Amino acid sequence: MSLSKNEIKLVKSLQIKKYRDLNRLFVVEGVKLVRELIEQSHFKIDGIFYTKDFDERIPSHIHSFEISDNELERISGLKNPNRVLAVVKYPTETPIDLDEDNLVLILDNVNDPGNLGTIIRTADWFGIKQVIASVATVDLFNPKVIQSSMGAVYRVRFYRTKLTEAVQELKANGYEVVGAALGGENLYQTAFQKKTALVMGSESHGISPELVPYISKMILIPQFGETESLNVAMASGIILSHYKREQTATD
Amino acid sequence: MSLSKNEIKLVKSLQIKKYRDLNRLFVVEGVKLVRELIEQSHFKIDGIFYTKDFDERIPSHIHSFEISDNELERISGLKNPNRVLAVVKYPTETPIDLDEDNLVLILDNVNDPGNLGTIIRTADWFGIKQVIASVATVDLFNPKVIQSSMGAVYRVRFYRTKLTEAVQELKANGYEVVGAALGGENLYQTAFQKKTALVMGSESHGISPELVPYISKMILIPQFGETESLNVAMASGIILSHYKREQTATD
Repeated sequence: MSLSKNEIKLVKSLQIKKYRDLNRLFVVEGVKLVRELIEQSHFKIDGIFYTKDFDERIPSHIHSFEISDNELERISGLKNPNRVLAVVKYPTETPIDLDEDNLVLILDNVNDPGNLGTIIRTADWFGIKQVIASVATVDLFNPKVIQSSMGAVYRVRFYRTKLTEAVQELKANGYEVVGAALGGENLYQTAFQKKTALVMGSESHGISPELVPYISKMILIPQFGETESLNVAMASGIILSHYKREQTATD
Repeated sequence: MSLSKNEIKLVKSLQIKKYRDLNRLFVVEGVKLVRELIEQSHFKIDGIFYTKDFDERIPSHIHSFEISDNELERISGLKNPNRVLAVVKYPTETPIDLDEDNLVLILDNVNDPGNLGTIIRTADWFGIKQVIASVATVDLFNPKVIQSSMGAVYRVRFYRTKLTEAVQELKANGYEVVGAALGGENLYQTAFQKKTALVMGSESHGISPELVPYISKMILIPQFGETESLNVAMASGIILSHYKREQTATD
């Protein structure tokens, strides 16, 4: 078969948030990410477009279409398209699990898609299951987020909501709300509760003022050099690692 | 004044490694990075091109030229040029300091410029002074490395050399050579020597086989989820943080 102009136009439009939201569809590209999408994720696949070099098995209940390399190039958002592109339905939204004995990561305006993808990848590495982002945080379904998460978007539950409400609910359900900020207490001397809600602010503006009243303590990754700040993904990963170190030492 | 065609051509050419190496010059862009370049770095500045909105003081011994916004756009490598561009001389190469009581970070083929910049930024945060990279590691003077390092390139000493030789020299001078790899011992239970040479491999190929014989122990950041790997910058930052935690606890 060959793709119609309208199909090409629809798939290409999913590079842009407005059209993703309108169609409630997003794209996943490349052999590894599509394989994991098929095998490991609960996401519903609307269709898979693959070239003749794609040699993974696609279950028969999934609509799939062989297309030419040239057609893949036309619908792809990558510089170097890699054999396959899947169009995926937005997952249905579920309520936050307020009983989980784990850290819940809260992202207060992370703007860079590479950072968000890296945060989700790292959260998954450390067994974090829930990430809550502010409404202004970059779109989870941005293709750069999907690619840089390395498939972790399939496993980590992601919520986008008003953070003041989320933080109040978590607090009411026994979570200690901790913020990462300059001037906080030394991370290396911090004891974490198992149920921790960790708020990461934006690199340029820190934690939003309206969240501060709900935060029980601020923590700081000790600084030994002159660099003024850490990248928000880096800071998140470092704090998650120290949280896990402590939890595993006291288990 | 206005820029000649040749000047525009030269500055633009510095986006490409071949021309940087040929001229032994690189570019630094944006108000913050150029201010730090002037105030904090030992780098020798060949010239500064600024627009009328740039209001930092430039010392009189530095050649500087006011140019139009349009001219800045023509010589800039940024999507959104930010008032100033400096042309900087390659620093002179110095030998590795083999007596430093600190961790020395060794990068075995880091290919992504954003990752290298983030690693240098994070190393500086943790007070690491020396980073040694393999010959195949992305160029330090790549504009994306400079920008993502947030000025840390001015403070961290960076060497590019044959790693087998560097690692042997470090070992001979009392450094314990530690590698980060799957299957290594648990980072959370690792005791670090003060003089540690930490080898980080590439995300796709790990540590080069020819370095393995010089490595005393492999360490692993414990994994709690299903994501297969961490970004190399993230892994570096997490290990540096645990190293510093241990050093400060036992000081």
